[in-house]
Amino acid sequence: MMFVAVMGYGTVGSGVAAVLKRNGEAISRRCGCDSISLKKILDIRSFPGDEFENLITSDFQEILNDPEIKIVAETMGGLHPAYDFVLALLKAGKSVVTSNKELVAVKGRELLETAEKNGVNFLFEASTGGGIPVLRPIYQCLCANEITEVAGILNGTTNYILTKMIKEGSSFEAALSQAQALGYAEKDPTADVDGIDALRKICILSDLCFGKNVPPESVEAIGIRGVTRADVSAAKTLGGVIKLIASAKRLDGGKLAVTVSPAFVKNGSMLSVTDDVLNCALVRGDAVGEVCFEGPGAGKLPTASAVVADIADCARHIGVNRSPSWEEGDGSNVVTGDSFTAPWLVRAKGDKEEIGKQFPGAGFIDVPGIPAGEVCFTTAEMPRSRVKSGLASSGAEACSVIRITDY
Amino acid sequence: MMFVAVMGYGTVGSGVAAVLKRNGEAISRRCGCDSISLKKILDIRSFPGDEFENLITSDFQEILNDPEIKIVAETMGGLHPAYDFVLALLKAGKSVVTSNKELVAVKGRELLETAEKNGVNFLFEASTGGGIPVLRPIYQCLCANEITEVAGILNGTTNYILTKMIKEGSSFEAALSQAQALGYAEKDPTADVDGIDALRKICILSDLCFGKNVPPESVEAIGIRGVTRADVSAAKTLGGVIKLIASAKRLDGGKLAVTVSPAFVKNGSMLSVTDDVLNCALVRGDAVGEVCFEGPGAGKLPTASAVVADIADCARHIGVNRSPSWEEGDGSNVVTGDSFTAPWLVRAKGDKEEIGKQFPGAGFIDVPGIPAGEVCFTTAEMPRSRVKSGLASSGAEACSVIRITDY
Repeated sequence: MMFVAVMGYGTVGSGVAAVLKRNGEAISRRCGCDSISLKKILDIRSFPGDEFENLITSDFQEILNDPEIKIVAETMGGLHPAYDFVLALLKAGKSVVTSNKELVAVKGRELLETAEKNGVNFLFEASTGGGIPVLRPIYQCLCANEITEVAGILNGTTNYILTKMIKEGSSFEAALSQAQALGYAEKDPTADVDGIDALRKICILSDLCFGKNVPPESVEAIGIRGVTRADVSAAKTLGGVIKLIASAKRLDGGKLAVTVSPAFVKNGSMLSVTDDVLNCALVRGDAVGEVCFEGPGAGKLPTASAVVADIADCARHIGVNRSPSWEEGDGSNVVTGDSFTAPWLVRAKGDKEEIGKQFPGAGFIDVPGIPAGEVCFTTAEMPRSRVKSGLASSGAEACSVIRITDY
Repeated sequence: MMFVAVMGYGTVGSGVAAVLKRNGEAISRRCGCDSISLKKILDIRSFPGDEFENLITSDFQEILNDPEIKIVAETMGGLHPAYDFVLALLKAGKSVVTSNKELVAVKGRELLETAEKNGVNFLFEASTGGGIPVLRPIYQCLCANEITEVAGILNGTTNYILTKMIKEGSSFEAALSQAQALGYAEKDPTADVDGIDALRKICILSDLCFGKNVPPESVEAIGIRGVTRADVSAAKTLGGVIKLIASAKRLDGGKLAVTVSPAFVKNGSMLSVTDDVLNCALVRGDAVGEVCFEGPGAGKLPTASAVVADIADCARHIGVNRSPSWEEGDGSNVVTGDSFTAPWLVRAKGDKEEIGKQFPGAGFIDVPGIPAGEVCFTTAEMPRSRVKSGLASSGAEACSVIRITDY
């Protein structure tokens, strides 16, 4: 019997308990590991009448000091006390799995190193892409590749809002209210809407794909608050849609271009049809070419699916460190913000002829319904700073500067 | 140093040699396994001037009897002598990885059992979906799920032909010629065009997802020779496209509905935008919901990417059996052919009123360009036998009966 504990009995934690109860026996049979049994659940709240009521404790020490508990699932979220608890557990020789993207993005390297030193595992499949298998396929199935780029739609809330704007012509505000009413967006939607959640996830993907830590604070994240119906219309005219794209790409000389921003994606691509709360990650490697992983990026049972798979992997590898790893990094190799280079879709208030002088070869497009006095055009590949300076030189005022991807 | 051999120096085998040479050092670093070194290549042909010329041998015994060679990649294709060689290697205590779908579909269970008995591994990620991570994500990342259905576009040749028919209005014959000219289709295209290749792959997926062997001969495979421009047009009118879909679905009482056939897929789905030679596999599980894996299902380097990842997995698990497994099965639980139940898209020569009497609630659709005297309609969910008998009773002649999927 393999005893496990869950820390945090919220949406994900209760999903983990439910999946273990429902499929526990089959999981141990399928995975060739000991039967997995949930022994403790840590939460400061009490849950009278809950089917797992008798497993709940508010005392972390009961888990830390229980020699029978070999694997702990951290589903609390946030940095503290999650970090402190996880560190103590790893040092005590217990494997830990987590769905906590903030913890992995900020403290992942240290926790992986601690796990390795103590001969246990630290796994976090659920932290990126929710229930979609993404991380393990990358570090196991694509291990023969030099990864050149990883990108995706990594936040369901913003994708839901953009889908409403694209398919129903909603404004950002109306779509956000709808998302809040349906429980897809928090009352304070900052972490989602401002791209912070997607930022943490692309940092984790970048760490894993390129082997070097990218601290979240080294990457510019632009959320979707500034996306307007005119942007949606401009993208449609150009044959695509606006999605919140997080991406990391290997450049020459060890540099990495990393960004989170609303971006143009062409119709017919996998990312273009990833709608509503779904997520999709795209990976490019030197042998495989391009592969995509699509599915539910959040939610109680999908996220639990990934957490429980990590528990099973730990159960199969007691005493053997099978976790991925990456080097220390301070973000000084990251190219982001105004230095980020791409072709751009620009809306600006200004004179077409003057703009044309500053952007030779600009492709002007007629966009139905854009405000009077605005022009819309696409640029060649250039740093965003060059777009800004070109607009300034032409006396124009930028309304939106949106990256055009090749996804 | 971990020595490996490759059997069959064709497209895939030469890709494996190339990837090992190019990324070998990084692979061993990333995977935490010994440095992987290619020691022998088995082929009856000689390759004068080839960079690996000095590794080539035509004598299988040189590989079988080399105690340094712990892992062998079988990339010969076909049942014999691949099966005989693989069996001998596993019995000799060597792990084997393969890209050979026929071998796995027909002999997989026996070879997995032999591997387990001998404490070695038999892995075959490349046999299904080429370079796309599909099998390992299912049996590892989705191990917390009861899989309810697996389906996909698993053959690139037929998908290329259908894409030409859909996007350029080509006839089947013209599109096949084009595919042959580009090297996407063999001179004798039977295995692809008649659905045999996709059949082997869905049998492997079904074995893995549902834990019981499905022999290929127990499943009806209908290829794309019969797909006409009228079918493409009918699908378009209905808001979707025709794709060659292979699928396996759990039914009540341990039965499995398994089929390979041209099928209607709705616009906007992942499968609907999987074009040209790309493949896509869709998996439904009770916790995760639905996930899709998309990418290159064939080709030298993509397939080598999967083969080499399996080699690395074997290298990490010397002496530990980590392969999946499934039970014996004779296909008696398979529902296929005329018993397969679905809603259907039907084209028939006959009288609309008479047909309407036989198919209450039929949705008649006006399809531009379909031959005079034909009617086109959709049915409720029913066995295909019921469609046939209904048409016969109405005095109509079936032109095409195409499954409507919910993908």
